[in-house]
Amino acid sequence: MTDQILRQLMDVLETRKQASADESYVASLHSKGLNKILEKVGEESVETILAARDAELSGNNEKLIYETADLWFHSLVMLSHLGESADSVLAELEQRFDLSGLEEKANRDK
Amino acid sequence: MTDQILRQLMDVLETRKQASADESYVASLHSKGLNKILEKVGEESVETILAARDAELSGNNEKLIYETADLWFHSLVMLSHLGESADSVLAELEQRFDLSGLEEKANRDK
Amino acid sequence: MTDQILRQLMDVLETRKQASADESYVASLHSKGLNKILEKVGEESVETILAARDAELSGNNEKLIYETADLWFHSLVMLSHLGESADSVLAELEQRFDLSGLEEKANRDK
Amino acid sequence: MTDQILRQLMDVLETRKQASADESYVASLHSKGLNKILEKVGEESVETILAARDAELSGNNEKLIYETADLWFHSLVMLSHLGESADSVLAELEQRFDLSGLEEKANRDK
Repeated sequence: MTDQILRQLMDVLETRKQASADESYVASLHSKGLNKILEKVGEESVETILAARDAELSGNNEKLIYETADLWFHSLVMLSHLGESADSVLAELEQRFDLSGLEEKANRDK
Repeated sequence: MTDQILRQLMDVLETRKQASADESYVASLHSKGLNKILEKVGEESVETILAARDAELSGNNEKLIYETADLWFHSLVMLSHLGESADSVLAELEQRFDLSGLEEKANRDK
Repeated sequence: MTDQILRQLMDVLETRKQASADESYVASLHSKGLNKILEKVGEESVETILAARDAELSGNNEKLIYETADLWFHSLVMLSHLGESADSVLAELEQRFDLSGLEEKANRDK
Repeated sequence: MTDQILRQLMDVLETRKQASADESYVASLHSKGLNKILEKVGEESVETILAARDAELSGNNEKLIYETADLWFHSLVMLSHLGESADSVLAELEQRFDLSGLEEKANRDK
């Protein structure tokens, strides 16, 4: 069901980047500039962190899912604003775990 | 190339959740508990924000891609720790943009 | 000129904690609960970070001062919400630097 | 007891700014540059937020005080790095609350 979601979403984001700021939230973020987009990334990361604490206590993940979606969405807008695609980030992740790189890096960091 | 990356990564994360904390960074995060994982989500979001500012000035997105991958990776570990999958978040995003929900919500918020 | 500012501000915050949420921003934060206050602490820290980057580029610290004041203000509201005063935090800082504890701790951390 | 703590601390920070990076944590932060200092501000704000949630559950504010001190300390290093003093931020706060500006601004924002 969820294959290709990020890629489709990235396409939608690219289209809406061209829209009028009055008609599209995405276009309005781009028109306000990178700082505004980064403020949203920061806000959503804090809301995700608080939702995760609430989910651990309540056993209900609904808000966690919603806030994580907001965080990923705004990070995609950030990538789009800087001319980058989700594919680059996914390729970075693929390279790391195919090579067991995540574990290797992680072990070095400990 | 990058299809299914998040789902494959989620499978890797689930396997490593069961590993020894000495052998796996992922297992060591789980053993330290949710607060440690959320500290990492917070740290990576700040590093992503700073990398985005650097990318805007330099025109070089390499560090931005690296830090965004770190942010997504640690948010997947968070989801895994709370028994949630990337699919739930992707389904939330799919539902929003199929229904033009992102734009509708956004317009309400302005 | 600026002696005692934090203590006076803490007194103002305690008074306004008792006010009606309609009349006072401080009271409205308390009525919305800890998560809302912590979201504001998170937002203001991101805005401070972005203002610091802007200040480094422009040489103008005006926005940095404004955002740092917002960050400190909301962290005081957080302390007040949890029954704590600025004095406890200042006493912690005093103890650390009188004993050269900051440097000692810092050297251990490197 | 705690009068003038921030100002004294700011003096200490200015002195240590000139020290060798090997001998002083403060000097090592300055030598690593603004991004490193801002990463610390971001980390400490997340740790403060998590400590506040723990304090609300446990009724124990010890870690909250410690983390808030870390947050204020690193924000002072940030100000020092950019040639600014705590006095400017305290003056901004004084001006706001003397004029009831916090409340006025807050009411406009609601």
